[in-house]
Amino acid sequence: MNSPISPSDSTRSIHLVNGPNLNLLGEREAHIYGSTSLDEIVAELQREADARGFHLTAFQSNSEGEIVNSIQQAQHRSAFLLINAGAYTHTSIAIRDALLAVSLPFIEVHLSNVYARENFRHKSILADVAIGQISGFGPYSYTLALYAAVRHLESSEESL
Amino acid sequence: MNSPISPSDSTRSIHLVNGPNLNLLGEREAHIYGSTSLDEIVAELQREADARGFHLTAFQSNSEGEIVNSIQQAQHRSAFLLINAGAYTHTSIAIRDALLAVSLPFIEVHLSNVYARENFRHKSILADVAIGQISGFGPYSYTLALYAAVRHLESSEESL
Amino acid sequence: MNSPISPSDSTRSIHLVNGPNLNLLGEREAHIYGSTSLDEIVAELQREADARGFHLTAFQSNSEGEIVNSIQQAQHRSAFLLINAGAYTHTSIAIRDALLAVSLPFIEVHLSNVYARENFRHKSILADVAIGQISGFGPYSYTLALYAAVRHLESSEESL
Amino acid sequence: MNSPISPSDSTRSIHLVNGPNLNLLGEREAHIYGSTSLDEIVAELQREADARGFHLTAFQSNSEGEIVNSIQQAQHRSAFLLINAGAYTHTSIAIRDALLAVSLPFIEVHLSNVYARENFRHKSILADVAIGQISGFGPYSYTLALYAAVRHLESSEESL
Amino acid sequence: MNSPISPSDSTRSIHLVNGPNLNLLGEREAHIYGSTSLDEIVAELQREADARGFHLTAFQSNSEGEIVNSIQQAQHRSAFLLINAGAYTHTSIAIRDALLAVSLPFIEVHLSNVYARENFRHKSILADVAIGQISGFGPYSYTLALYAAVRHLESSEESL
Amino acid sequence: MNSPISPSDSTRSIHLVNGPNLNLLGEREAHIYGSTSLDEIVAELQREADARGFHLTAFQSNSEGEIVNSIQQAQHRSAFLLINAGAYTHTSIAIRDALLAVSLPFIEVHLSNVYARENFRHKSILADVAIGQISGFGPYSYTLALYAAVRHLESSEESL
Amino acid sequence: MNSPISPSDSTRSIHLVNGPNLNLLGEREAHIYGSTSLDEIVAELQREADARGFHLTAFQSNSEGEIVNSIQQAQHRSAFLLINAGAYTHTSIAIRDALLAVSLPFIEVHLSNVYARENFRHKSILADVAIGQISGFGPYSYTLALYAAVRHLESSEESL
Amino acid sequence: MNSPISPSDSTRSIHLVNGPNLNLLGEREAHIYGSTSLDEIVAELQREADARGFHLTAFQSNSEGEIVNSIQQAQHRSAFLLINAGAYTHTSIAIRDALLAVSLPFIEVHLSNVYARENFRHKSILADVAIGQISGFGPYSYTLALYAAVRHLESSEESL
Amino acid sequence: MNSPISPSDSTRSIHLVNGPNLNLLGEREAHIYGSTSLDEIVAELQREADARGFHLTAFQSNSEGEIVNSIQQAQHRSAFLLINAGAYTHTSIAIRDALLAVSLPFIEVHLSNVYARENFRHKSILADVAIGQISGFGPYSYTLALYAAVRHLESSEESL
Amino acid sequence: MNSPISPSDSTRSIHLVNGPNLNLLGEREAHIYGSTSLDEIVAELQREADARGFHLTAFQSNSEGEIVNSIQQAQHRSAFLLINAGAYTHTSIAIRDALLAVSLPFIEVHLSNVYARENFRHKSILADVAIGQISGFGPYSYTLALYAAVRHLESSEESL
Amino acid sequence: MNSPISPSDSTRSIHLVNGPNLNLLGEREAHIYGSTSLDEIVAELQREADARGFHLTAFQSNSEGEIVNSIQQAQHRSAFLLINAGAYTHTSIAIRDALLAVSLPFIEVHLSNVYARENFRHKSILADVAIGQISGFGPYSYTLALYAAVRHLESSEESL
Amino acid sequence: MNSPISPSDSTRSIHLVNGPNLNLLGEREAHIYGSTSLDEIVAELQREADARGFHLTAFQSNSEGEIVNSIQQAQHRSAFLLINAGAYTHTSIAIRDALLAVSLPFIEVHLSNVYARENFRHKSILADVAIGQISGFGPYSYTLALYAAVRHLESSEESL
Repeated sequence: MNSPISPSDSTRSIHLVNGPNLNLLGEREAHIYGSTSLDEIVAELQREADARGFHLTAFQSNSEGEIVNSIQQAQHRSAFLLINAGAYTHTSIAIRDALLAVSLPFIEVHLSNVYARENFRHKSILADVAIGQISGFGPYSYTLALYAAVRHLESSEESL
Repeated sequence: MNSPISPSDSTRSIHLVNGPNLNLLGEREAHIYGSTSLDEIVAELQREADARGFHLTAFQSNSEGEIVNSIQQAQHRSAFLLINAGAYTHTSIAIRDALLAVSLPFIEVHLSNVYARENFRHKSILADVAIGQISGFGPYSYTLALYAAVRHLESSEESL
Repeated sequence: MNSPISPSDSTRSIHLVNGPNLNLLGEREAHIYGSTSLDEIVAELQREADARGFHLTAFQSNSEGEIVNSIQQAQHRSAFLLINAGAYTHTSIAIRDALLAVSLPFIEVHLSNVYARENFRHKSILADVAIGQISGFGPYSYTLALYAAVRHLESSEESL
Repeated sequence: MNSPISPSDSTRSIHLVNGPNLNLLGEREAHIYGSTSLDEIVAELQREADARGFHLTAFQSNSEGEIVNSIQQAQHRSAFLLINAGAYTHTSIAIRDALLAVSLPFIEVHLSNVYARENFRHKSILADVAIGQISGFGPYSYTLALYAAVRHLESSEESL
Repeated sequence: MNSPISPSDSTRSIHLVNGPNLNLLGEREAHIYGSTSLDEIVAELQREADARGFHLTAFQSNSEGEIVNSIQQAQHRSAFLLINAGAYTHTSIAIRDALLAVSLPFIEVHLSNVYARENFRHKSILADVAIGQISGFGPYSYTLALYAAVRHLESSEESL
Repeated sequence: MNSPISPSDSTRSIHLVNGPNLNLLGEREAHIYGSTSLDEIVAELQREADARGFHLTAFQSNSEGEIVNSIQQAQHRSAFLLINAGAYTHTSIAIRDALLAVSLPFIEVHLSNVYARENFRHKSILADVAIGQISGFGPYSYTLALYAAVRHLESSEESL
Repeated sequence: MNSPISPSDSTRSIHLVNGPNLNLLGEREAHIYGSTSLDEIVAELQREADARGFHLTAFQSNSEGEIVNSIQQAQHRSAFLLINAGAYTHTSIAIRDALLAVSLPFIEVHLSNVYARENFRHKSILADVAIGQISGFGPYSYTLALYAAVRHLESSEESL
Repeated sequence: MNSPISPSDSTRSIHLVNGPNLNLLGEREAHIYGSTSLDEIVAELQREADARGFHLTAFQSNSEGEIVNSIQQAQHRSAFLLINAGAYTHTSIAIRDALLAVSLPFIEVHLSNVYARENFRHKSILADVAIGQISGFGPYSYTLALYAAVRHLESSEESL
Repeated sequence: MNSPISPSDSTRSIHLVNGPNLNLLGEREAHIYGSTSLDEIVAELQREADARGFHLTAFQSNSEGEIVNSIQQAQHRSAFLLINAGAYTHTSIAIRDALLAVSLPFIEVHLSNVYARENFRHKSILADVAIGQISGFGPYSYTLALYAAVRHLESSEESL
Repeated sequence: MNSPISPSDSTRSIHLVNGPNLNLLGEREAHIYGSTSLDEIVAELQREADARGFHLTAFQSNSEGEIVNSIQQAQHRSAFLLINAGAYTHTSIAIRDALLAVSLPFIEVHLSNVYARENFRHKSILADVAIGQISGFGPYSYTLALYAAVRHLESSEESL
Repeated sequence: MNSPISPSDSTRSIHLVNGPNLNLLGEREAHIYGSTSLDEIVAELQREADARGFHLTAFQSNSEGEIVNSIQQAQHRSAFLLINAGAYTHTSIAIRDALLAVSLPFIEVHLSNVYARENFRHKSILADVAIGQISGFGPYSYTLALYAAVRHLESSEESL
Repeated sequence: MNSPISPSDSTRSIHLVNGPNLNLLGEREAHIYGSTSLDEIVAELQREADARGFHLTAFQSNSEGEIVNSIQQAQHRSAFLLINAGAYTHTSIAIRDALLAVSLPFIEVHLSNVYARENFRHKSILADVAIGQISGFGPYSYTLALYAAVRHLESSEESL
C-alpha cells in the first residue's frame, strides 16, 4: 500500500500519509467510512494528480513512530503533505512536531465529520499548524484536499 | 449582494449564506481574509454552479435573525446550503436550530483556518449537524464546498 | 402572527413572546415539538384568556433585537409576560436585561423537556429572574403558564 | 400524612411523592415555601383529582430509601407519579434509578424557583427522564402538575 | 446511645447529633479517631453541660433520613445543636435543609482535621450556615463546641 | 431476601450486600440487567459457596443507612464482603467509611458495564479501597467475584 | 436618538455606539444606572465635544446586527469609537469582529461597575482589542471616555 | 512470548493482547504486579482454555502500532479478545479504534486495582466499548476473564 | 517619592497608592508603560488637584505589607483613594481587606490595558469593591481617575 | 502590640501570630469582627494562659515576610503556635513553608465563619498541616484555641 | 546514531535516550533548537563522560515502543539514564512505566525552555519520578545533566 | 548572609536571590533540602565564580517586597540573576514583573524536584520568562546554574 517517495521533481510531488486503522477502509464500519478501500482511494488520487502534472506518493502505518519517520523522509522529496492521522490526530504531539520540523505545507483530511462523533475526536493537535482542514465527505475529502494542494503549489509557482 | 431565492427547480438550487462582517471582504484585513470581495466570490461560484447545471443564490447579513429567516426561506426553494456563519458560528444556537428545522444538508465553510486563531473560534455550534467542514483555503474554500455540494446532490439523484 | 399590544386595560393584559424558529411549529420536527402551529396555539390561549377576563397579545421573531423591543413595548401595556425565548434562552443576556428593565413578572415556557436534550440547552439565562418555569408538555405548557399567570395577577389584585 | 396506595383502578391512580423537610411546609420559612401545610396541599389535590375522575395517593419521607420503596410500590398500583424530591432532587441517583425501573411517567415539581436559589439546586438528577418540570408557583405548582398528569393519562386512554 | 429529647426547659437544652459510623468510635481506626467510645464522649459532655446548668441530649444514626427527623424534633425542644454529620457533611443537602428549616443555631464538629484527609472531605455542605466549626482535636472537639454553645446561649440570655 | 449473618465459622463466611433497586432484578429493564431475580442469583451463589466450603449470607436494602448497618454487623461475622452498592456506588461516602471502618476485604461488583452508561456512573467512591472490581457480566459478575473472594481467603489461610 | 454620521471632517469625528436596553436609561433601575436619559447624556457629550473642536455622533440599537452595521458605517466617517455594548459586551464576537475590521481606535464604557455585578458580566469580549476601559462612574463614564478620546486624537495629530 | 494466531477453528479461539512493560512481569515491582512472569500466566491460561475446549493465543508488545496490528490480525482468526493494554489503556484512541474496527467482543483486564493508583490511571479509553472489566486480582484477573470469555462464547453458541 | 499624609482638611484630601515596580516608570519597558516617571505623574496630579481645591498625597512601595499600612493610615487623613496596586491587583486579598476595613471610596487605575496582556492580569481582586476602574490610557489614566474622584467628593459635599 | 518572645521556659510558651488588618480589630466592621480590640484579646488570652501555667507571646504584622520571620523566631522559644493569618491564610505558601520548617504544632484560628463569606476565603493553604481549626466564634475562637493548645501540651508532657 | 549498550562495567555506564524528531537537530528550526546535530552532542557528551571515567551510550527513536524497549534493555547494563523524551514527555505513560519498572535514577533534559512554549508542553508525565530536570540551555542542558549524573553516581559510590 | 551588590565590573557580576525560608537551609527538613547551610552554599558558589573570573553577590529575604527591591537594585550592577524564589515562585507576579522590568537574563533554581511535591508547587510564575530551569539536585542545582550563567555570559562576550 505504501509507495516509495522518490519523484524526479520534488517541487511537483505530494505525499499522502494515512494513520492507524485506515488500512481497514472498505472492510468494516462502512456506515461510517464508506466501502472504498485505501488502495482504491490512492489509485484515484494518483490519476487526479497525474492529470494535473503532479506526482502522488502514499504511506500508511498503524505506528506513530513510522508516521513520524515518513514525514521526516518527505522533507526533501515532496512539496506538500496530505495527512489523515486517524486516531493520532487527537493525541500525537510527536507528529505535530515532525510536521513543524519539516515545515512542509499540509492539509488535514478526515473521511467522517469528526465533530459529529465522540468528544475526544473534536480536538485536533495538528489543526492550528495546517493550511486548512477538510472533513466529512468520505473518500471525496481526499480529492478536495488534492485540489487545494495543487492550487496552493501552482499559486506558489506563479508568485516566483 | 443578496440574490432572490426562486429557482425554477429547487432540487438543483444551492443557497449560500454569509454571516456578519463578510460584506467587508476584500476591503480590510486582507492578510487574513484575502483581497477578493464577496461579490466577486459569489459571481465566481455562480459561474461554477451554472457550468454544472446548478443554480446558486446568495445572502449576507450582519443580523442573526435575518440569517435565521434566510435559512427558513430556503426550505422549499433550495436543495443544499453552504454557510459561512462568521462570528455566529461560535455563538448562535438559533442558527443551528434553523438548520435543523429546515433539515437541508449543509456544509460549513471558513475562509481562514479557525483553529489557528483565537480560542473562542475553535468551537463551532453548527459542525456536528453539518455534512462536513472546509476551512483555511480563502475564497477557494467556497469553491471546494460547491464541488462537494454538487457531488452530494448528484449522488442523491442517482440513488433515486 | 404578531398581534398589536394595546389592550384597553393593561392590568388585565398578558403578553406572549416567542423566539427564533417557533414560527415553524407544526411544520417540522413534529416528534419534538408536536403538530400544532403557533397560530393555533395563540388562538387557543386567547380563548382561554378571554374566558378568564384577560387579554392576550402575542409576538414572534427570529431576531434577538426585536424580542428586546417587544419586551420594552410591553412595559406600559401589559401586566405579565409569558416567554418562550427558544434558542435565545441559553445565550441572550440582552433579553434578560430587558426583562429586568421592564420588571414585569414573567414565566419561562418550553414545549419540550430541555433537560432531555443537548447540554447547551440545560442552562437558562432567564430562569433565576422568572416567577417560575414550565417545560415538557408541548403546547399545553403554554396553557399551564397562562393559568399560573392568571392566578398570579388575580392574587395580586386581591392583595390590593 | 401518607395515604395507602390501593385504588381499585390503577390506570386512574396518581401517586404523589414528597421528599425531605416537606413535612414542615407551612410551619417555617414561609417567605420561601408559603404558609400552606402539606396536608392542606394534598387534600386540595385530592379534591381536584376526584373532580376529574382520578384517585390521588400521597407519601412523604425524609429518607431516601423509603422514597425508593414508595416509588417501587407504585409500580403496579398507579399510572403516574408527581414527585417533589426536595433536596434529593440534586443528589439521589437511587431515586432516579427507581423511577427508571418502574418506568411510570412522572412530573418533577418544585414549590420555589430553584434557579433563583443556591447553585447546588440548579442541577436536577431526575429532570432528563421526567415528562416535564413545573417550578416556582408555590402549592399551585402541584395543581398545575396534576392538570398535566390528567391530560397525559386521558390522551393515553384516547389513543388506545 | 440515643437519649430522649425532653428537657423541662428547652432554652437550656443542647442537642448533639452524630452521623454515620460514629457509633464505631473507639473500636476501629483509633489512629484517626482515638480510643474513646461515643458513649463515653456523650457521658463526659453531659457532665460538662450539667456543671454549667445545661441539659445535653444525644442522637446517632447511620441513616440520613433519621438524622433529618432528629433535627426536626429538636426544633421545639432544644435551643442549640452540635452536629458531627460524618460522611453526610459532604453530601447531604437534606440535612442542610433541615438545619435551615428549624433555624436553631448550630456548630459543626469534626474529630479529625478533615483538611488533612481525602479531597472529598474538604467541602462541607453545612459550614456556611453554621455558627462556626471546630475540627481536629479528637473528642475534645466536642468539649470545645459545648463551651462555645454555652457561651452563645448565655450571651443571648443576657441580651434579653 | 435477606439472610441472617451468623455462620458458625466467621473466617469461612462471605457477606453479599446489594444496594437500591436491585430487589427489582429480573422484573424490569431486562435488556440492561438480565432476567434473573436477585433471589435466584443469591441461591446460585450459595450453592457455589457451599461447594467450596464457604458460607454466603446476603442483604439488600434501598436505604443507605441500612447498608451501613449491615456492613458494620458483618465486621465480626464475616471474612469478606461482596458489594454491589448500585446507585450509592457513586454518591455514598458513608458506605465507603463503613467499609474502611470494618476493614474487611471487599470486591465491587456491577451487573452492567458502568462505563458504557451515563457519565455519573463512571466514578466509584468505593473503588480505590476495594481489592478489585468486576463489571459487565450480568449475574455471572457475582459468580466471578465469589471465585476471587474464595481464592483470596484460601491464599490468606495458606499464608498463616 | 440616533444621529447621522456625516461630519465634514472625519478626522475630528467621534462615534458613540450604545447597545441593548440603554434606550431605557433614566426610566428604570435608577439605583443601578442613574436617572439621566440617554438623550441627555448624548446632548451633554456633544456640548463637551464641540467645546474641544470635535463632532460627536450617536447610535443606539437593541439589535446586534444593527450595531455591527453602525460600526461598519463609521469606518470612513469617524476617527474614534466610544462603545457601551451593554449585554452584547459579554456575548458578541460579531461586534468584536466589526471593531477589528474597521480598525478604528475605541474605548469600552460602562455606567456601572460590572465587576460588582453577576459573574457573566465580568468577561468582556471586546476589552483586549480596546484602547482602554472606563466603568463605574454612571453617565460621567462617558465624559471621561470622551476626554480620553480627544486626547488620543490630538496626540495623534501632533505626532504627524 | 508471542504465539502465532492460527487455530484450526476461529470460533473457539481467544486472543490475549498485553501492552507495554508487561513483558517485565515477575521481575520488578512485585509488590504491585506479583511475582509470576507473563510466560507463566500465558501457560496457565492455555491449560485452562484447553481444558474447556478453547484455544488461546497471546501477544505482547511495547509498541502501540504493533498492538493495533495484532488486533487487526485477530479479526478473522479469533472469536474473542482479552486485553491488558497497560499504559495505553489511558491514552490510545488507536487501540480503541482497532477494537471497534474488528468488532470482536473483548474484556479489559488489569492486574492491579487501577483506581487505587495515580489519577491518570482512573480513565480507560477502552472501557465503554468492552463487554466488561476485571481488575485487582493479580494474575487471577486473567483467569476470571478467561472464564467470562468462555461463558460468553458458549452462550453465543447455544443461542444459535 | 512618598509624601506625608497630613493635610489640614482630610475631607479634601486624596491619597494615591502605587504598587510594586511602578517606581521604575519611565525607565524601562516604555513601550508598555510610557516614558513619564512616577514623580512626574505625581507632580502633574498634584497640580491638577490643587487647581480644583484638593490635596493629593502619594505613596509607592514594592511591599504588600507597606501598602496595607499606607491604606490603613489614610483612614483618618484622606477622603478618597486612587490605587494602582500593580501585580498585587491580581493576588492580594490583604490589600482588598485593608480597603474594606478603612471603607474609603476608591478607584482602581491601570496604565496599560490589562485585558490585552497575560491571562493572570485579567482578574482583579479589588475591582468588585471599587467605585470604578480606568485602564489603558497611560499616565492619563491617573488624571481621569482624579477627575472622577473630585466629582465624587464634590457631589457628596453637595448632597450634605 | 507585639510582645518579645523570650520566656524562661520554652516548653510552656505559646506564640500567637496575627496577620494583616487584624490590628484594626474593634475599630471597623464590628458587624463581622466584633468590637474588641486586638490588645484586649491578647491581654485576656495572657490572663487565661497565666492561670494555667503557660506564657503567651503575641505578634501582629501586615507583612507576609515579617510573619515568616516571627514564625522562624518562635522555633526555639515556643512550644505551640496559634495563628490567624488573615488574608494570607488563602494565598501564602511562604507562611505554610515556615510553619513546616519550624515544625511546631499549631492551630488555625478565625474570628468569623470563613465559609459564610467570599469563595476565595473557603480555601486555606495552612489547614492540612495544622492540628485543627476553630472559626466563627469571634474573640472566643482564640480562647477555645488556647484551651486546645494547653491540652495538647499537657498531654504531651504526660506522655513523656 | 544509536550505540550498543554493553559497557564492561554497568555501574559506570550512563544511557542517554532521545525521543521523536531529535534526530533532526541542527537541520531545522535552529532558532529553537540550535545548530548542533545530535551526533555532535553525543560525541561531546562521550568525551565529557570518558574524561570522568564513565561510559555513555546513546539511543534515539521516533517510536514510543522502541524507547520503552531501550529503557528496559538499560536495566542491567547502565546505572543512570538521561532522557529527553521530546514530545512523548507530555503524553507517554508507557515510558513513565518503563522508567519506574527498571527503577534506574534518571534526569529529564530539554533543549528549550518548555515553559515558554505551547501549553501542552508545560506538563511532564515523567517529572515527578525523575531525580531532577534541566531545561532551556540548548545542547549544554545535556552537559549539565551529565555533570549531575556523574555527581549522583560518585556520591552513591562514596556512601557504600 | 546578604552581600552588597557593588562589583567593579557589572558585566562580570552575577546576583543570587533566595526567597522565603531558605535562610533555614541545613537546619530543618534535611530529608528534603539537605544539610548544607545557605552560607556554605554561597561561599562555595563564590569560589566557583571567582575561579572563572566572575563575581557573585547574594541576597536572601522572607519578604516579597525586599526581593523585588533586590532585583531592581541588580539592574545596573549585575549581568545575570540566579533566583530561587522559594514559595514566591508559585504566587508572586510582583517578582515576575521585577524580573521583566530589569530585563536581566536569569535562571530559576530549585533544590528539590518540585514536581514530586504538592500540586501547588508545579506551577511557576517565573518559568516562561527565564533562560532555563534547574531543579532537584540539592545545593548542586546552584552550581549547575552558575555554570550555565557563566557560559551564557561568556558566549555573549564572544558574540560582541
